[in-house]
Amino acid sequence: MKRVLVTGASGFIGRHTIKRLVDAGFEVHAVSRRSQPMDNGHHWHCCDLLEPAAAADLIRATEPTHLLHLAWYAEPGAYSTAPENLGWVEASLRLLRAFARPDRRAVVAGTCAEYDWSFGFCSERVTPLRPTTLYGECKRSISAIAERFASEAGLSLAWGRIFFVYGPGEHQNRLVASVVRSLVGGEPALCTTGTQVRDYLHVADVASAFVRLLDSDVVGAVNVGSGEPLAVRQLLSTIGDVTGAPQLIRFGELPTRPNEPPLLVADARRLFDEVGWRPSHTLRSGISDTVDWWTAQLASPRRRARSDLI
Amino acid sequence: MKRVLVTGASGFIGRHTIKRLVDAGFEVHAVSRRSQPMDNGHHWHCCDLLEPAAAADLIRATEPTHLLHLAWYAEPGAYSTAPENLGWVEASLRLLRAFARPDRRAVVAGTCAEYDWSFGFCSERVTPLRPTTLYGECKRSISAIAERFASEAGLSLAWGRIFFVYGPGEHQNRLVASVVRSLVGGEPALCTTGTQVRDYLHVADVASAFVRLLDSDVVGAVNVGSGEPLAVRQLLSTIGDVTGAPQLIRFGELPTRPNEPPLLVADARRLFDEVGWRPSHTLRSGISDTVDWWTAQLASPRRRARSDLI
Repeated sequence: MKRVLVTGASGFIGRHTIKRLVDAGFEVHAVSRRSQPMDNGHHWHCCDLLEPAAAADLIRATEPTHLLHLAWYAEPGAYSTAPENLGWVEASLRLLRAFARPDRRAVVAGTCAEYDWSFGFCSERVTPLRPTTLYGECKRSISAIAERFASEAGLSLAWGRIFFVYGPGEHQNRLVASVVRSLVGGEPALCTTGTQVRDYLHVADVASAFVRLLDSDVVGAVNVGSGEPLAVRQLLSTIGDVTGAPQLIRFGELPTRPNEPPLLVADARRLFDEVGWRPSHTLRSGISDTVDWWTAQLASPRRRARSDLI
Repeated sequence: MKRVLVTGASGFIGRHTIKRLVDAGFEVHAVSRRSQPMDNGHHWHCCDLLEPAAAADLIRATEPTHLLHLAWYAEPGAYSTAPENLGWVEASLRLLRAFARPDRRAVVAGTCAEYDWSFGFCSERVTPLRPTTLYGECKRSISAIAERFASEAGLSLAWGRIFFVYGPGEHQNRLVASVVRSLVGGEPALCTTGTQVRDYLHVADVASAFVRLLDSDVVGAVNVGSGEPLAVRQLLSTIGDVTGAPQLIRFGELPTRPNEPPLLVADARRLFDEVGWRPSHTLRSGISDTVDWWTAQLASPRRRARSDLI
C-alpha cells in the first residue's frame, strides 16, 4: 500500500500530479491552504504548513509512505527575493523531520536556480551550485541539509531540480502565458531578440516526471528538464504559428537583461536513463494545449473566475 | 602596412582565410609544406615548420606584423592521440618565440577539446580546462605557455578555440562530408540517434572569424563557434532535405559512443560582442554550399584529383 502526501497540491505543478499519482497506484493525500473538493481516489487536507505544528499533525494523521513536497512561495516578480522563502525553509525542514523513517520515500522540488548559471549546461554531478537569489539559496540549503539528514535517518530522498515550465494554469505575468494571452487577444507582444537558450517542459510533463521519480528508488539531485536546448525565439515563434498571429510578436522591442545567461539547459540523463521518464508533449503539442486553455479562459468570465481559485 | 604570416594556409580552414585577409588589407604570406601557385595579392612560402630553423628563417625573411598560426596535425581518426602533436607543440613555441615583439599581433588556433566536456557549455572565463586527449592537452599547454609568454614579451595574442566545422574541403571520413557523400551518391548513411547537441560553423565562417579576431585587439581565449546549440539529428536532416534524399539517413543504426557528451556548445559572446564578428551562413545555406561542392567533386574525377592536393 503506497500512500502519498502531496504539498502544494493546488499549485501550478501540483494539480497536475494528482491523477497521475492515483493512476500509479497511490492513495493520494493532497495538501493545500485552500479547501478543495474531494474527488475520486484522493483526499484533500486544508492545512497551512507555515504553522509550526501543522506538518507533524498531518504526518501523524495520514501516516504516508511517500512524500511529494512541492509547496513554496512562488509569486512572479517577488519570489526570488521575498522573505517568505525563509518561512518555507523552516516548513520544509519540519516536514522532512516529521516524515523521515527508514521505510519511507520523499521527493522535494528544487530549482535550476541552485546552479551557477555561468556554466549554462547544468549537470547534477558536475556543475557547481552557486545561487544568486535568496530563493535559489534557500532551495540549495535545504537540499544540502536534507541529503545529509536523509542519509542519517535512512530516508530515501530525491531532489527534482525544475527548469523552465509552461502550460495551462501558469501565472499570467510569466513569459509563455503573457505572450499567449496577447496573441489570443489580438494584441502585440513585445519581446527581446529571443536568442537566449533555455530548457522548457510542459507542466504536465514536469508533473509526470515528479511522479515517476517518486515511484523510483533514484536518490539525490535529478534535473527535471527536457535536456533539449530551445531558443526563446523558437518557443515564441511556435506560439505565433499555433495562434495564427506570428506578426504580433515583436522581437527586439525589449532589451535583453544585463547578465542574462545565453544558455541554461538541463543535463537530463539521470531523469531519462536512471528514472526512465519520457515527456509526452512535443513543443508544438504543449503550446497548442496551452493556447486552447487560454482561449477558453479568455472566452468565458466564469471559467476565468474559477481559475483564479487554483 | 599590415603583413600577415599564415601557417596551415593550404589546410581546411587556412585556405578560406587568404582572400579574406587580402580583402581586410593584409599583405599575405601563406605558408604550406606543399608548393602552391602564386596568386594576386599574396605570396606562398613552401616551408616545413617542423624543421627546427624554419620558423626563425621565415620570420626574418618576411618581417610580418601579424601571425595567424593554424598549422597542426589533423588526420581524422589519428590526430587525437598521435605523437605528431608533440612536434607541433615544439614548432608552435619556436614560431611564437621568433615572432614575439611588442608591436606585433598573433592569433593561434586552439580547440574546444581543451575544455572539460562534462560542463557542456564552454565559456572562456568560467569553464575549467581538462582535455582528455593528447591533442587537447598539447593545445591547452601551448595556450597556457603562450599567454604567459606574450604578456612578458608584450605581444598581443589571442587564442581561437574552434568547435565543430563542416564545409567544402572537409576530410571525407568526417561526419558531414561522409553523410553528404553517401546521400549524393544514393547510398544510405548509417547514423546514431543524433540527439547529441553540438556547435557547428561552416568553414568559411570559421575563417572569417579568425581574420576578424586577428584584425581586432581582443586578447586571450576566444571561442570560435556559433553559440547556437544544434542537435546532430537536425544537422543531418538538413543534409537530407538539401539533397532530396532524407530517406537514406538511417538514424539509430549506429550506437552512441559511451561517454559521448550530450551537449557541447560555445559561449560565443566574446566573439560576437567583443570581436564584433557575425556568421554569413545559415545552417541551410552552409549545407547547400557543401552539397554543391561534393556534387561537383563526385561528378568529375579530374576535379576530385585536384582536391586531393589541397
